[in-house]
Amino acid sequence: MLEHISILTLSCPNRPGIVAAVSTLLFEAGCNILDAQQFDDTETGRFFMRVVFNRLEGSQPHEAIAAAVDGLAERFAMQASLREVGRKKRVMLLVSKFDHCLADLLYRWRIGELPMEITGIVSNHAREHIASTDLGTLPFHHMPVTRQSKMEQEAEIWRLIQETKTDLVVLARYMQILSDGFSAKLAGRCINIHHSFLPGFKGAKPYHQAHERGVKLIGATAHYVTPDLDEGPIIEQDVERISHRDTPEDLVRKGRDIERRVLARAVLNHLEDRVLLNGQKTVVFTD
Amino acid sequence: MLEHISILTLSCPNRPGIVAAVSTLLFEAGCNILDAQQFDDTETGRFFMRVVFNRLEGSQPHEAIAAAVDGLAERFAMQASLREVGRKKRVMLLVSKFDHCLADLLYRWRIGELPMEITGIVSNHAREHIASTDLGTLPFHHMPVTRQSKMEQEAEIWRLIQETKTDLVVLARYMQILSDGFSAKLAGRCINIHHSFLPGFKGAKPYHQAHERGVKLIGATAHYVTPDLDEGPIIEQDVERISHRDTPEDLVRKGRDIERRVLARAVLNHLEDRVLLNGQKTVVFTD
Amino acid sequence: MLEHISILTLSCPNRPGIVAAVSTLLFEAGCNILDAQQFDDTETGRFFMRVVFNRLEGSQPHEAIAAAVDGLAERFAMQASLREVGRKKRVMLLVSKFDHCLADLLYRWRIGELPMEITGIVSNHAREHIASTDLGTLPFHHMPVTRQSKMEQEAEIWRLIQETKTDLVVLARYMQILSDGFSAKLAGRCINIHHSFLPGFKGAKPYHQAHERGVKLIGATAHYVTPDLDEGPIIEQDVERISHRDTPEDLVRKGRDIERRVLARAVLNHLEDRVLLNGQKTVVFTD
Amino acid sequence: MLEHISILTLSCPNRPGIVAAVSTLLFEAGCNILDAQQFDDTETGRFFMRVVFNRLEGSQPHEAIAAAVDGLAERFAMQASLREVGRKKRVMLLVSKFDHCLADLLYRWRIGELPMEITGIVSNHAREHIASTDLGTLPFHHMPVTRQSKMEQEAEIWRLIQETKTDLVVLARYMQILSDGFSAKLAGRCINIHHSFLPGFKGAKPYHQAHERGVKLIGATAHYVTPDLDEGPIIEQDVERISHRDTPEDLVRKGRDIERRVLARAVLNHLEDRVLLNGQKTVVFTD
Repeated sequence: MLEHISILTLSCPNRPGIVAAVSTLLFEAGCNILDAQQFDDTETGRFFMRVVFNRLEGSQPHEAIAAAVDGLAERFAMQASLREVGRKKRVMLLVSKFDHCLADLLYRWRIGELPMEITGIVSNHAREHIASTDLGTLPFHHMPVTRQSKMEQEAEIWRLIQETKTDLVVLARYMQILSDGFSAKLAGRCINIHHSFLPGFKGAKPYHQAHERGVKLIGATAHYVTPDLDEGPIIEQDVERISHRDTPEDLVRKGRDIERRVLARAVLNHLEDRVLLNGQKTVVFTD
Repeated sequence: MLEHISILTLSCPNRPGIVAAVSTLLFEAGCNILDAQQFDDTETGRFFMRVVFNRLEGSQPHEAIAAAVDGLAERFAMQASLREVGRKKRVMLLVSKFDHCLADLLYRWRIGELPMEITGIVSNHAREHIASTDLGTLPFHHMPVTRQSKMEQEAEIWRLIQETKTDLVVLARYMQILSDGFSAKLAGRCINIHHSFLPGFKGAKPYHQAHERGVKLIGATAHYVTPDLDEGPIIEQDVERISHRDTPEDLVRKGRDIERRVLARAVLNHLEDRVLLNGQKTVVFTD
Repeated sequence: MLEHISILTLSCPNRPGIVAAVSTLLFEAGCNILDAQQFDDTETGRFFMRVVFNRLEGSQPHEAIAAAVDGLAERFAMQASLREVGRKKRVMLLVSKFDHCLADLLYRWRIGELPMEITGIVSNHAREHIASTDLGTLPFHHMPVTRQSKMEQEAEIWRLIQETKTDLVVLARYMQILSDGFSAKLAGRCINIHHSFLPGFKGAKPYHQAHERGVKLIGATAHYVTPDLDEGPIIEQDVERISHRDTPEDLVRKGRDIERRVLARAVLNHLEDRVLLNGQKTVVFTD
Repeated sequence: MLEHISILTLSCPNRPGIVAAVSTLLFEAGCNILDAQQFDDTETGRFFMRVVFNRLEGSQPHEAIAAAVDGLAERFAMQASLREVGRKKRVMLLVSKFDHCLADLLYRWRIGELPMEITGIVSNHAREHIASTDLGTLPFHHMPVTRQSKMEQEAEIWRLIQETKTDLVVLARYMQILSDGFSAKLAGRCINIHHSFLPGFKGAKPYHQAHERGVKLIGATAHYVTPDLDEGPIIEQDVERISHRDTPEDLVRKGRDIERRVLARAVLNHLEDRVLLNGQKTVVFTD
């Protein structure tokens, strides 16, 4: 009965009574709380909450609950978001010819691991360059880009995002730096996978940088895109042990495994409304 | 102002309205929720919650809140526990001549990592066998044990537990199997560290068993003691990678690091009321 | 120049002079050692070695080196194996309808991570049940099996193995127990992935067993198949942290990630001649 | 019979015949190779090797083997080092008032994990500030330092290093930056523990930097000290997962566990001659 399950996320200045107000609202609306997590950021005085609930028999309809949440949001100066779980997020995947993250996301989606609707796949490379991945009947858009055509290409992607009502853009090793303006438009709904353990090895060729420096672990970082390159709010990171025997090519190979699992976890957490923005950081209510 | 912070833990059959009732009670008593975590066990229909709150100026006194919690507990058939954080738990440490876990716990306690009062150290070995650890002025009790004297020795430990108002007993590599009766008396308040990744390699010499089997990771398990040997509710586990080069002695050495960090985490979680019993399993509301 | 690189693996009773004999043989044959790893098992007195070398200009031909190695093997009572890296191993993949390991192995093979020739895919389920994986033009053999037809089905697979000159059989979540006779025939060249951290949770439904027991980490184990179920020599294991919140279904999902990376690592190590059998254990000369 | 076991480490320009020459030398001297590891750095053309061997009955004496190794070193332009395992390295520990790494190293030394002679403990803080660690009868030197007195204090430490024939200096959270000159004098024999996953968060207060940035893992790095701050060759690194709930103080606490195990591993590897310098990187022949 997924259609009767909803997720409420909210953040607001902290003050006594928020949990009581939220839980009482839901109780009185005929709902049962299935899961709730909260976080007080004592540094900034901001409060964050994620509540999963279902509507019991005889409950108020979704619209009435949404209206009540709006009232609550106004009272507590909340940023609140309410979503019925049955309404999956709509996701566009941007990719270069490195398709290991794309292949991984598509497989997870096909077997039901990632609750999303894919609105399309966009690449600056032609479809034949993504040879190892089965794209099925998913809409594929070849949108080549040069330094000169960047603005036009981004405008084209933006049109596609709007036409397809895309909620989330995933840069699955897209290898292109988005313009400041495009990054700003996608704030909080564009996830990138960077192939290093940020803040180490920003920029280009991080595995070669890591090899040069002689680190003993390599990593990957999934973060929201912001105009500040490789500085966006981090959602998920992971690492693996390497040794002096590993060439830069070995690091690229081992890194693929880290990249794909870090990106998949970040996307899943976003799809399940587990990630809340907290300035330049994230609150992740993990499973 | 630790003395104004309290922790409420509770478990009860799940039904709508629990969170609302708890949070409203605290709000109306003049308290502010600092942290709350909850868990619905959908298999058993049982609900678990941990709430950290502080009393604001003008709040009801601790005793009044405790009385209100008692009322709530009756209404919802809850097992509830309320503790002011300033009242540290009282802990007795049982140890053999393998003292690496003891040395680690004592160091963490000395630098303020583990909020506890140590009521004493009990060993079946004489003090001079614990040569590498600085016991300072802590009460040390040498209580040798043989198969014949086991009941008497356990009775002696039990008297000491009662006299010293000990809340928690930690078997820090004590290497003796408690009798069924003694285990039962200590149900839910006696933590053991087993030097394997349970349920693999129960019983004696687990590192030798692991070496024999040729596993590629070894581990340690902290669990509550029950009459069923090595079958008690697991609180924490961890592992480390090993290789074919490792002798049983290497495993013992590498294992010490795993044991001490697993035990320290389990003890800290218990001291902070983060561990709730759920039948033969635990709910651990981690930091 | 992969065709000029060879890998020599050997094991024999330990005695002084083995390394000197091997390295002198290669030096005098005009070869350069690129990598060498060795291991003395002091318990059993057995010596293991893996040497990667290339033939320099003017070196003896492969056949002459092979003959010299044969002589050495006789002198030291060695089990020795010599392979030119350009001659890839031939691999058959057996699978049920759980195809996440299959999909992963095929993707890695397509992008060049796994140096192997795939001789075919065998499943007890029809091809349409493996819907999420692109099998391309690889030979697919639907070989249904019942308790009654097991011997015939295994005989059929065996014929296929021989016809296709298959070197290695991978049970990529095949979910069928091989008969003792078939297991014995495939000794040392059939890798299975078991979805638990062995020796914990042998047999059926390990994730459900793990959930029941309340462990805090789950794992997977890749091992050579032997007639003794889930007792074969372990090649690789890994684990991931779980919590009380995880349902058995969550464990199955999280486990897929562990299974596929553990199996891929084990297969890669086998393909690169990094795994040597040492009785019921393995020596793995990792990268 | 540790006194009959020796470790030979060497590095030189790679060319065919090195392994044959080394192993033949040892065989002819009446020695048996117990362990050997090697590494070709194909980028720089440099070859690295570590050989553990014991002298069999009737072997040549240590001095004769040492002379033969000298001859070999000249022939191959090797940097070679030969040490009888019974001759433990002499180690000086420098510490501030953060004594968790010191306490850990001393405990490991006392129970025989770290094969070293401690030549003394030096601190810029008085002994009473290291209250949680049992220094026993080890020589303790209080050497306060100010910006003005730095050169004099370092000269004093240097005299102590020479007087005590110290082989290795360990900065166990010493919290002082060594001058360029002092760093240069200690090249390759001074290990520092930095409390971040380098190259991320160089310099001061790395845990606060990590908290500010919102990373999801924190780490520690053990490296050889060079005049270039936090840029020396990395010996060992490790990380642990954190979350948005962790305050900077939590990171400091969790970091202590990472720091002490990373430093202990690095020191052990150095004591066992497992770490070879390779320009600004290290080759670590792990156990």
